[in-house]
Amino acid sequence: MTVNAYGAHAGDKPLEPIEITRRAPGLQDVQIDIAYCGICHSDLHQVRAEWAGTLFPCVPGHEIVGRVSAVGAQVSGFAVGDLVGVGCLVDSCQHCEDCESGLENYCDNTVLTYNSPSAEAPGHTLGGYSEQIVVHERYVLHVRHPEEQLAAVAPLLCAGITTYSPLRHWNAGPGKKVGIVGIGGLGHMGVKLAHAMGAHVVAFTTSDSKRQAALDLGADEVVVSRNPEEMAKHATSFDLIVNTVAAPHDLDAFLLLLKRDGTMTLVGAPATPHPSPGVFNLILKRRSIAGSAIGGIPETQQMLDFCAEHGIVADIELIRADEINTAYERMLKGDVKYRFVIDNATLSA
Amino acid sequence: MTVNAYGAHAGDKPLEPIEITRRAPGLQDVQIDIAYCGICHSDLHQVRAEWAGTLFPCVPGHEIVGRVSAVGAQVSGFAVGDLVGVGCLVDSCQHCEDCESGLENYCDNTVLTYNSPSAEAPGHTLGGYSEQIVVHERYVLHVRHPEEQLAAVAPLLCAGITTYSPLRHWNAGPGKKVGIVGIGGLGHMGVKLAHAMGAHVVAFTTSDSKRQAALDLGADEVVVSRNPEEMAKHATSFDLIVNTVAAPHDLDAFLLLLKRDGTMTLVGAPATPHPSPGVFNLILKRRSIAGSAIGGIPETQQMLDFCAEHGIVADIELIRADEINTAYERMLKGDVKYRFVIDNATLSA
Repeated sequence: MTVNAYGAHAGDKPLEPIEITRRAPGLQDVQIDIAYCGICHSDLHQVRAEWAGTLFPCVPGHEIVGRVSAVGAQVSGFAVGDLVGVGCLVDSCQHCEDCESGLENYCDNTVLTYNSPSAEAPGHTLGGYSEQIVVHERYVLHVRHPEEQLAAVAPLLCAGITTYSPLRHWNAGPGKKVGIVGIGGLGHMGVKLAHAMGAHVVAFTTSDSKRQAALDLGADEVVVSRNPEEMAKHATSFDLIVNTVAAPHDLDAFLLLLKRDGTMTLVGAPATPHPSPGVFNLILKRRSIAGSAIGGIPETQQMLDFCAEHGIVADIELIRADEINTAYERMLKGDVKYRFVIDNATLSA
Repeated sequence: MTVNAYGAHAGDKPLEPIEITRRAPGLQDVQIDIAYCGICHSDLHQVRAEWAGTLFPCVPGHEIVGRVSAVGAQVSGFAVGDLVGVGCLVDSCQHCEDCESGLENYCDNTVLTYNSPSAEAPGHTLGGYSEQIVVHERYVLHVRHPEEQLAAVAPLLCAGITTYSPLRHWNAGPGKKVGIVGIGGLGHMGVKLAHAMGAHVVAFTTSDSKRQAALDLGADEVVVSRNPEEMAKHATSFDLIVNTVAAPHDLDAFLLLLKRDGTMTLVGAPATPHPSPGVFNLILKRRSIAGSAIGGIPETQQMLDFCAEHGIVADIELIRADEINTAYERMLKGDVKYRFVIDNATLSA
């Protein structure tokens, strides 16, 4: 089946309308008519070949929501008409220790939603900037939010789970002081989620102008990280800091804010390294620096259900497909509150 | 009371015999006639003023064993004649959350065995290169090894607990694959302890010549870390790596060997930073880099009892006090298997 999409033919070319093909649903496949797709910063890195190994044509998009339009004969969990989501993964080996633990995100053989080698044309996966996608049911999530929130649910599939997973893994909740560094696409979700989990949430931003916005998202306190006096007030007080900033920066300033046995989890990876963190800052309070990558499939369903229950969605700006290139330029300047989402109905315009 | 000691009057001077005074035991104090004191690399850094803030005269030494020669009226846990040890701490605030948890090592107000400000002459604490020391009983440990092993027990008080604590905290034991990086004073204890805990132990050394020695210490396997092929065989397989190397080195080579959720714990701090570790190596398998500092007092007693039960002591070279300066030079060249220990009876010679 041929469907409309938006993608690029080379790293130095803008995205433009292209036609792609989707397989007919196999026995365990779910065919989804995509309603909305969020724009993640990764999309830009990949499509512009800023990361190694971009396969062209490249159709990005891994924050996908829509409605089931067909299911394979053996599909048991989904029916035509269901509201569903697809995140960063569309397959994995399904039998390693990670997959069997529901941590498919850590499998060595994940198939990403776009830019992973594939047996189907054009030889690699194509993402959610398209009218339709066909995915093995294991990697499809139920969306239980009201339909009118559907566009704002899309970013939960990457920005949501990427912050939810470390918050859960490192036990954010009542009695815990949790920091979220960077109030952008990921960070604004981190603040909302940590708040809903019952933690005392401190948002760190470099910009004094984001103070009120961070409070509105649910932060109990806001700290301007460029202000050493504000930072010093929080020394040795955090159980967990989730650091969403992908630009190289001074990790020590945040390590010093962790309690004994506290952890700072990095969910963004800079293109050039951070300054090397001070080993004494780790040793003297048995602190840790960790990393975390998106989340497993069962955990992604938990996250979506948690968000539905707590009325949590992303703050978004809905755009037409022909505004994607402009949105990328604005995203580069941080000019978005907090996530662009494509109205995929405009792909056929 | 005036006692003989060995110390330095300036960072650029060798150590020499000096006389120091010790307080009469207070109500809760234990007076110890020191039999042996281990030489830790920290001693050299501090006495040579390579670390900031060295207070002179400096008498190093925090791997102390000996026999109780007097006790204060309120001392309940020790009697004259007991074999005892003292490690890196001789006091702390005794009431913070860390102290109340038996993690005095993480208290913000620790008094180190040497070079910490003190009300007594000469205004700072003086360590175990001396005939006698007087310590609050909370910071004194029972030694239950046979007396003939006493000299080789001394290094357990720093090198032993510094590796025991992270091994226990990160659950080294049966079914776990544990790496020990660096086979020196700390590392050789790490190998012995991890082996006794029942873990599968892999020793990492830069030197092929240490292979047999590491096996003899109890390693199940030895990997020469400069050999990329040997390293690659262990990719993504370790639960825990305890890294004892204080010289700056490539942490990524070891991070890649950790399983999902594995931790590398640093127990040595380099004078100049390590190359900055790769964030993707943390993110892609939810790995952690942590630090750990010596251990708490109850944990140090546990460690000593564990070692007594398993017949574990350090491998040592016993020296006279007048060989300390030579021993420092040899230690700098890595020419020691694996710890120098001073026979404190030679201080009066």
